[in-house]
Amino acid sequence: MVKLKADYVVCMDKNYTILENAEVIFDKEIKKIGKNLPKVDKEIYLGKNSVVMPALINTHTHLEFSSNKTLLEYGDFIGWLNSVIEHRETLFVECKGECFKKAIEEMKKSGVCAFGEISSTGDDLKYIKHSPLKVVYFNEIIGTTPGAVDMLYQDFQARLHESFEIEKRNEKFKVGISIHSPYSVHPILMEKVISIAREKNLPIQAHFMESKAERSWLDKGEGEFKLFFEKHFKNAKPLIKPLEFLEKFKNTHTTFIHCVYANDEELQKISELNASIAHCPVSNRLLNVGILNLERVKNFSIDYSVATDGMSSNYSLNLFKEIRAALLMHTDLHPKILAKDLLKSVTINAAKSLNLNNGSLEEGKDADIIAFKLPNKVKNLELLPLQIILHTNEVEKMYINGEEII
Amino acid sequence: MVKLKADYVVCMDKNYTILENAEVIFDKEIKKIGKNLPKVDKEIYLGKNSVVMPALINTHTHLEFSSNKTLLEYGDFIGWLNSVIEHRETLFVECKGECFKKAIEEMKKSGVCAFGEISSTGDDLKYIKHSPLKVVYFNEIIGTTPGAVDMLYQDFQARLHESFEIEKRNEKFKVGISIHSPYSVHPILMEKVISIAREKNLPIQAHFMESKAERSWLDKGEGEFKLFFEKHFKNAKPLIKPLEFLEKFKNTHTTFIHCVYANDEELQKISELNASIAHCPVSNRLLNVGILNLERVKNFSIDYSVATDGMSSNYSLNLFKEIRAALLMHTDLHPKILAKDLLKSVTINAAKSLNLNNGSLEEGKDADIIAFKLPNKVKNLELLPLQIILHTNEVEKMYINGEEII
Ligand SMILES: [Fe+2]
Ligand SMILES: [Fe+2]
Repeated sequence: MVKLKADYVVCMDKNYTILENAEVIFDKEIKKIGKNLPKVDKEIYLGKNSVVMPALINTHTHLEFSSNKTLLEYGDFIGWLNSVIEHRETLFVECKGECFKKAIEEMKKSGVCAFGEISSTGDDLKYIKHSPLKVVYFNEIIGTTPGAVDMLYQDFQARLHESFEIEKRNEKFKVGISIHSPYSVHPILMEKVISIAREKNLPIQAHFMESKAERSWLDKGEGEFKLFFEKHFKNAKPLIKPLEFLEKFKNTHTTFIHCVYANDEELQKISELNASIAHCPVSNRLLNVGILNLERVKNFSIDYSVATDGMSSNYSLNLFKEIRAALLMHTDLHPKILAKDLLKSVTINAAKSLNLNNGSLEEGKDADIIAFKLPNKVKNLELLPLQIILHTNEVEKMYINGEEII
Repeated sequence: MVKLKADYVVCMDKNYTILENAEVIFDKEIKKIGKNLPKVDKEIYLGKNSVVMPALINTHTHLEFSSNKTLLEYGDFIGWLNSVIEHRETLFVECKGECFKKAIEEMKKSGVCAFGEISSTGDDLKYIKHSPLKVVYFNEIIGTTPGAVDMLYQDFQARLHESFEIEKRNEKFKVGISIHSPYSVHPILMEKVISIAREKNLPIQAHFMESKAERSWLDKGEGEFKLFFEKHFKNAKPLIKPLEFLEKFKNTHTTFIHCVYANDEELQKISELNASIAHCPVSNRLLNVGILNLERVKNFSIDYSVATDGMSSNYSLNLFKEIRAALLMHTDLHPKILAKDLLKSVTINAAKSLNLNNGSLEEGKDADIIAFKLPNKVKNLELLPLQIILHTNEVEKMYINGEEII
């Protein structure tokens, strides 16, 4: 049993409880939170202005692209997509063990205990399986050519099988599946893969309505995507309507990524599906697709997580920096209220998205905990989330399943 | 004579010249820029993916407030202003030599060679005069009580005199004056102080239209400022109309700070005055006053600089981080084009604002130069400014007047 004492304990429970001069007792699980708790063997006071809170969770990354620094084209979605297609192989070849390690290390330093990894190829499995952080490994399916459906599905099943083998032996590793997007996966393939997820109760991720181009393409078969498809795939018709696409995720545990251009009907559907949204503000900005309207998302009672996306569309995987960017970027939202929501977005909401038993300090939750110090004391606790987001870049301590990782 | 060779030389001249594999020769001044220049005694190649560009200039800070970390209230302009008034003395007392040094050090590491300092008290002079960076020291005037005008003016003159004494002996130190704002300075005081600036050709800074509260107060004597003035000063009438205020700066060299709520007429006037605007996006965000419409500013042909403001309304004085924040926050502007403008905003535009002979690599300009490395090469030079802003936090080398400072 370990007892951490801190000046501020931010529980991230339903009541947004923040305790001053409080303690958390845990082994693999969190046992007790409060003041003046009974003595245990190992007691650590974290110092003046210290904060203890649940470790962060980065719901959506693509670590296979971690070698990108300045290669991909930013500023335009389709320009970016073309550059991804052009440089994909180069980037994949350049990202080997050291590159994955560094990417995971950057997340870890920023207090991330778990992340959702979209695996395009399965080649990342040999690195990801050694992650010191919890992983939900989303085997991705992509492909629209009808003739290739069987081949793609077989390949998918092989990757899925391999990842289940890892899951058996590694308690930090969970399997998920990913449907790349409504414009890039053949509906038959979608159905096959989603039904596996439904059967085996696997979490799903799918990119949805990331760009205006996607909107015009799916609605009307027009716009920049038309040129794109004609160039790459000689396939100039959208294969599914957005609402039909969403419909396919009935009775699953799904997170839709981006949703910047989702309309009211679609948000209503996402809400009915009890699905959540992953919001990647820096990625959206670099591809110049605008910014998700978080108030609208809230009005539809949809929970959102904030995630970094991959280095294919970001300059950092540091999740504290990502939520600081979000805090700055949503200039129409009240900083104090947004800050509270943003801490939720990378803890309790993110845990729900990835189907993990962490993200809050509550009895029975996994002991996934971070600690760090603020530069000074915060008198008005209403401002604590904001000050945490402004001043925290890296954590001093992290526990995962009660084990000291930092 | 020194010759710097770099993979990218970003001149920040009128044509936005970027040279690959080029060189800069300088002593105190820049002598030559180009390829395969004649040999000199000291030649330094800065390495793969290196960038040489003019050092940055932070036009607007309040270093007296550098001890603030988590004390001031964020999220609401008037709430913040009240907290500044409440904690002003505490913050000033806490900021002594070490605090100023640290603040300047943070700017310096981020490649800042010069900054505009608003001095409220004059107490900062004894620290600022030792700055390794160039300073334009804006003696600030503030006060609306008619009976106090003479006393305030005398105090101002004494501070001004002291700063002129420093200027005589320190080539990196220049004197300026600051009118705090249209709502906080008595018009008689304004006139007296502005006429000194006009006579002696001193640069001026004035906060203008930072908040909606300022807008309602100056337009109609209403809103939150009314309550504020009644509480603090028993003075419940605005003393000047915004356009009258701007009019007072005719034939001066003035920078208006913020201008978030400036209307078309006022922007037109600012343009006619040939004045510039200092844009402080993080400060504006933390006080929840919205964001300056940069397209509108551009349409009125007004140059803007981006500045950090003080630690009273920021978590950092790193100017590269500030322009990265700006790049992210202006979600309606094209990242590639905005990035180019933002580099201008902290170099050539900022030099013009502070009336300095630097901010670009051109023959005859002061040799104020920074160098740093990008994580990888950038093939499309159109994207270089964006990649510089995304990946640069600190510089490897800085020269000021040709002297190696880092
Ligand atoms: Fe993604
Ligand atoms: Fe200011």
